[in-house]
Amino acid sequence: MNFNICVLKGDGIGPEIVDEALKALDKVGEKFGHTFNYDERLIGGAAIDEFGVPLPQETIDACKASDSVLLGAVGGPKWDHIEPSTNRPERGLLGIRKELNLFANLRPAKLWAPLADACPLKPERLGDGLDLVVCRELVGDVYFGKKWRDEAGAGHDDMNYSTPEVERIARVAFDMARKRRGKVTSIDKANVLETSRVWRETVQRIAAEYPDVETDYLYVDNGAMQLVLNPSQFDVILTGNLFGDILSDEASCITGSVGMLPSASLSDTKLGMYEPIHGSAPDIAGQNIANPIATILSAAMMLRYSFDLAEEADAIENAVASVLEAGHRTGDIAKAGEKKLTCTEMGDLICAAI
Amino acid sequence: MNFNICVLKGDGIGPEIVDEALKALDKVGEKFGHTFNYDERLIGGAAIDEFGVPLPQETIDACKASDSVLLGAVGGPKWDHIEPSTNRPERGLLGIRKELNLFANLRPAKLWAPLADACPLKPERLGDGLDLVVCRELVGDVYFGKKWRDEAGAGHDDMNYSTPEVERIARVAFDMARKRRGKVTSIDKANVLETSRVWRETVQRIAAEYPDVETDYLYVDNGAMQLVLNPSQFDVILTGNLFGDILSDEASCITGSVGMLPSASLSDTKLGMYEPIHGSAPDIAGQNIANPIATILSAAMMLRYSFDLAEEADAIENAVASVLEAGHRTGDIAKAGEKKLTCTEMGDLICAAI
Ligand SMILES: CC(C)[C@H](C(=O)O)[C@@H](O)C(=O)O
Ligand SMILES: CC(C)[C@H](C(=O)O)[C@@H](O)C(=O)O
Repeated sequence: MNFNICVLKGDGIGPEIVDEALKALDKVGEKFGHTFNYDERLIGGAAIDEFGVPLPQETIDACKASDSVLLGAVGGPKWDHIEPSTNRPERGLLGIRKELNLFANLRPAKLWAPLADACPLKPERLGDGLDLVVCRELVGDVYFGKKWRDEAGAGHDDMNYSTPEVERIARVAFDMARKRRGKVTSIDKANVLETSRVWRETVQRIAAEYPDVETDYLYVDNGAMQLVLNPSQFDVILTGNLFGDILSDEASCITGSVGMLPSASLSDTKLGMYEPIHGSAPDIAGQNIANPIATILSAAMMLRYSFDLAEEADAIENAVASVLEAGHRTGDIAKAGEKKLTCTEMGDLICAAI
Repeated sequence: MNFNICVLKGDGIGPEIVDEALKALDKVGEKFGHTFNYDERLIGGAAIDEFGVPLPQETIDACKASDSVLLGAVGGPKWDHIEPSTNRPERGLLGIRKELNLFANLRPAKLWAPLADACPLKPERLGDGLDLVVCRELVGDVYFGKKWRDEAGAGHDDMNYSTPEVERIARVAFDMARKRRGKVTSIDKANVLETSRVWRETVQRIAAEYPDVETDYLYVDNGAMQLVLNPSQFDVILTGNLFGDILSDEASCITGSVGMLPSASLSDTKLGMYEPIHGSAPDIAGQNIANPIATILSAAMMLRYSFDLAEEADAIENAVASVLEAGHRTGDIAKAGEKKLTCTEMGDLICAAI
């Protein structure tokens, strides 16, 4: 088959890590007889430098015309002086999420057995292990509500969720739980926020349609504690945009290897956006030492969710697992004394294992 | 000296743990020649049962007429069916914070050396140790902004901060940092929220008045990660009401012993409110097995902050340390095979050590 992928390499280590993911896709194409066409466009700081804006219209158009989008990372100190409410690189990320209606952000956090040492938690805290997905609503909440300063100079943001917004993300979470261990934990602050009360009522109503799925409700403060105290209780965490931002980062660092974690942002069509959860790491950009695995695994998620190529996705994921088991490490996941591969070397090894 | 303390025992284990704190205060009074008078009032579920509301006017009046307030904990399943926007026990807590203008919530999180085993993090993550204070704004933010449902049924909450609100909490944090290790980390989401941009601009302006204090700015997602990955980088964490709710709970569970952690909520007068950070633990209420230490340490904070009795506060804190060093434990902090003291026994031992 033939797939058109819009490629947004972005800033910092973005170009290096995306190149390795494209290599892996090409290898999959070769092996399974698919053709992946890449339409490379600018976003973030790179787009600011070229077009003066972090999300040019031609990038939006190219994404919409594609079968799916692969993103590296955006931002860096070069653009940090820009007034944050206008044209900072992050606006590109928020903009493309909204333009493509990517309402469901899936962030799997699992412990890779060969990297268990990197986990910051004591082993006895992990119980049955750590293998959860944060299912974060991505185009609503206080992120996209009205923002203003009042006459007195106070800053305001309108936090809000409507019933249909909660319904559609809840269905994604419950459907996903059915394919996993059958448990959804919805996290909100319904004891304080009206937004959360709409959230909770709606999730409760949708939960009733999934009697086979166990449903739990936690307040966000307790959720942040439970992730540290007893993370193996979680299967699918269903939460809003703001709490999801915080909790998914907390969950990912509990795995001890943020450089390993992919993400998928899905809409109600097959068009999704796939990106590593880590940032653009400007401090190591251009040195060919970044870990490309999170981006390569993001490409695997694209194969699975947007292109329905489960076998091909498995091939990438198994290749990553075998390379790790063989003891190959980039600098971020190497222990003292272990050999540190370059970004390209790691990409080559994974391609060879596909 | 003579001090009038309004005592709000609350629900669940509240009465048991507060009784031990009053015993400790009496012991301090005896030893140092002070008299503490207690005016006991109802709040939370107990007040709902008696008056139909979680915060009766007479409780507010008694608190305002006192020199300071000692609180146990509120809430429990008995009142969970009550519609959350109206009269749930938590409304009592939010109400008293607002009525007394308790804008500065201080939550120290430190690792007690004899309990280091309970810390969920691997020892190598703790670096120089864990001894931080979360300085959380407590009467503003999305907690107290307008709340409504629109015509379409969407829930809304007005998140907001004004410059004066940020200034006063920032000064508390910077003044506190001067008495500690001289570092403030301000945590916000200024890359997305207008509220956070006002927050950050204001903190930056106040920071300029404290050139001797080192100031850092983190986005809240990164803050939640750093607390797990490298908690010893923090001295004073300065943050808003919502992020403070999440981060202070995360910080406290990293110590591994939530039952040990006190808090102070301060206004711009000497009148403050002091309470353990843990909840009302309805499952163990009435069994005399709760850990009273967080409440006893909250009483010590009252002596220090509201009554300027530093030596007396030290006496309580040293007594707690010596009892722990001697190996005495309540159930929540006992290891397998260790003897579990009752709540009263723990209180008695601490009194004896004062
Ligand atoms: C860069 C920022 C706007 C973004 C967010 O808050 O969503 C990032 O933290 C993320 O989680 O993808
Ligand atoms: C009970 C609840 C309203 C409260 C809060 O969110 O402030 C609690 O979590 C706390 O942190 O004291």
